[in-house]
Amino acid sequence: MIADKTLQAVSATRLQHWLDTLATFGPGTHGGMNRQALSEDDFQARAWLIAEARKLGCAVWTDGCANLFIRREGREDLPPVMTGSHIDTQPTGGTLDGCYGVMAGLEVLHALTDANVQTLRPIELVVWTNEEGSRFSPGAMGSSAYVEPARLTDYRGHQDAAGVTVGAALDAHAQRFADLPHRAKIATHAFVELHIEQGPVLEQAGVPLGVVHGIQGVRWYQVRCRGASAHAGTTPTALRRDALLMATAALGPIDALAERLAGENKRLTFGRWNVHPNAINTIAGEVTFSIDFRHSDPAVLNAFDADLGACLPGDAELTRLFDHAPTTFDSRVIEVLEHGCNATGLAWQPIRSGAFHDAMYLAEHCPTAMLFVPSRDGISHNPLEYTEPAQLEAGVRALAWSLVALAEQP
Amino acid sequence: MIADKTLQAVSATRLQHWLDTLATFGPGTHGGMNRQALSEDDFQARAWLIAEARKLGCAVWTDGCANLFIRREGREDLPPVMTGSHIDTQPTGGTLDGCYGVMAGLEVLHALTDANVQTLRPIELVVWTNEEGSRFSPGAMGSSAYVEPARLTDYRGHQDAAGVTVGAALDAHAQRFADLPHRAKIATHAFVELHIEQGPVLEQAGVPLGVVHGIQGVRWYQVRCRGASAHAGTTPTALRRDALLMATAALGPIDALAERLAGENKRLTFGRWNVHPNAINTIAGEVTFSIDFRHSDPAVLNAFDADLGACLPGDAELTRLFDHAPTTFDSRVIEVLEHGCNATGLAWQPIRSGAFHDAMYLAEHCPTAMLFVPSRDGISHNPLEYTEPAQLEAGVRALAWSLVALAEQP
Repeated sequence: MIADKTLQAVSATRLQHWLDTLATFGPGTHGGMNRQALSEDDFQARAWLIAEARKLGCAVWTDGCANLFIRREGREDLPPVMTGSHIDTQPTGGTLDGCYGVMAGLEVLHALTDANVQTLRPIELVVWTNEEGSRFSPGAMGSSAYVEPARLTDYRGHQDAAGVTVGAALDAHAQRFADLPHRAKIATHAFVELHIEQGPVLEQAGVPLGVVHGIQGVRWYQVRCRGASAHAGTTPTALRRDALLMATAALGPIDALAERLAGENKRLTFGRWNVHPNAINTIAGEVTFSIDFRHSDPAVLNAFDADLGACLPGDAELTRLFDHAPTTFDSRVIEVLEHGCNATGLAWQPIRSGAFHDAMYLAEHCPTAMLFVPSRDGISHNPLEYTEPAQLEAGVRALAWSLVALAEQP
Repeated sequence: MIADKTLQAVSATRLQHWLDTLATFGPGTHGGMNRQALSEDDFQARAWLIAEARKLGCAVWTDGCANLFIRREGREDLPPVMTGSHIDTQPTGGTLDGCYGVMAGLEVLHALTDANVQTLRPIELVVWTNEEGSRFSPGAMGSSAYVEPARLTDYRGHQDAAGVTVGAALDAHAQRFADLPHRAKIATHAFVELHIEQGPVLEQAGVPLGVVHGIQGVRWYQVRCRGASAHAGTTPTALRRDALLMATAALGPIDALAERLAGENKRLTFGRWNVHPNAINTIAGEVTFSIDFRHSDPAVLNAFDADLGACLPGDAELTRLFDHAPTTFDSRVIEVLEHGCNATGLAWQPIRSGAFHDAMYLAEHCPTAMLFVPSRDGISHNPLEYTEPAQLEAGVRALAWSLVALAEQP
């Protein structure tokens, strides 16, 4: 069967070569990466990947958000099966994250050629622009603009820290890759994204493969507490309005709310803090902090939303920064991925993603699911990000089997 | 009596003119000031003040830390009575703070001339360099280096945010004011510093003058909590090591310790926070925060120091950044200042300073005390810093009387 033939043709050595080559564009600190979306490093990585695609006889398109589509034609001109991820990184990121999913797709294209397989449907490898959101906000920009092109009008005005707009960066990409034809959204048979887990679940379970059933929903908030900035030495305690104490006093009640709603599935993070004026000898006049709350049940997210205000001091300002409903992946694609995992002969388990992925947006457009491989110590977005080579290979083998099986579906 | 004659010669109009003129050098935002130590603005302000001093027939010296000494000769060449403060400001400071004490001294020199008074001892107006410490650390650099010149060797290597060393800035000052003779530390009969309170005590009591008996001692610490930076979505609560939660959990025990030791006199501030990597969707891997604890009793400061470690998580790293013992001002100088306040006909009260002042270091060298006037809403280090003109005048009148009385002491 051609799915098994393709699986057998996957080369772990070649996969490592693709990963090593991609890591030469935008090396970061301590063996990590710093390849920001639409930077010169990103452009050079794209140019290399496009050249590799053309060596395989693939056609390449781009679109208004600089996503890249690398197409291996099928026996018939049916809606394709797509796979892919992103190649931008966090400022102190690792070499896997989105890169692994893209290089896995490149390796599957080689395996198909080596196995001399032509699938019924075309198979496309996609590179989604700016998934990390670390240069331009928001993340998953390319995939969200692909699925809903009206979003791009707004995104084009967003700026990076140096004041460069998304629009200017996209125009530079269009100029740099002027030979690439543009293509709008097309009907798609299925989308599969292979990714490192970025959490500790598979590693702790000792299972090398995960079939992802969905992505947790998320709510992001900002809380602003206003006190009065005053001298730490001269202001009696009774006359203080210390914004830092106001803010930290709210953490217990917020945690209790999350605990009550989610129990052991609680995912609550106060990750970003800005204290003003942030001086040793000055009482904080204003403190803002972020809340990241995730759950797979929309009812829990809504209940958190409803009760959060009551956890805060009366005059605190609560802003909802972002929210995304839980994503449930397509059961028919999941079933194919389960067969793909079985075809590797290795253990797998169902898992839920705590992180966002481009697949979150693709699921709005076509049948979608994901595969995970373990992350050592659950670490990602860090130069220490690591997955064992055998696990990296297993993920690509399961992906190869699944893409061919999906592409053979009439 | 010549002290009363001098008090009567103080001009509120002229005082306001000095303050307004000084405020033209280094204007900041919203009516405030931004005159950093040894900046071009500071140099221009110094040039103006030196010119004003020479119009009055005063001699001017500087020293290795760019302090300025403006001397009105006495009838005899005895150790002088000194007064003064500083003219550098916080980046978003007001127009009073140290400026008031220096302009008050300039006005007293004018009042002495108008009243045709020559005191027994010389009277010197001093401008201390870099009291704020906002450009170069530490604060009170000029007064501390004056009292203990060995400190200057270390200070000269300190850098501002742009990498300019104190040494280079001092050399630029020496070049700019090459006509000023240098003078080392001299025996001093007394030092009096007039300052705004920078706190709410006098205003709340409705009392226009405060005679300062001492300065609270202070301990500055930094606490570093190390957790593990991880993805907010993918990391189960049980596996997290959230440095932000470690840090905030310590605040309650630290507060309880301070409350137990100091009761209603508690002055405890957690003013500076650094959260790493400070991203909404990443669990904090490292959090550092500062502790500012002040008290007038050395035993309380020592007890806080002894018990602080027990309030922190086991692996937190505690660093003592700075400490200064409580300062007790000289009782004979205090007595003169009480008479000076009485001579204004206005109410006064004893008070303790919560803030540092150059007088803290001068007290190590000679009999020293301070006068305070109220700060509206207790605000300072802010463009909203304000003291009523009648209160500003009262302070200078009390200062004038006191300086003459001290300078008549044999």
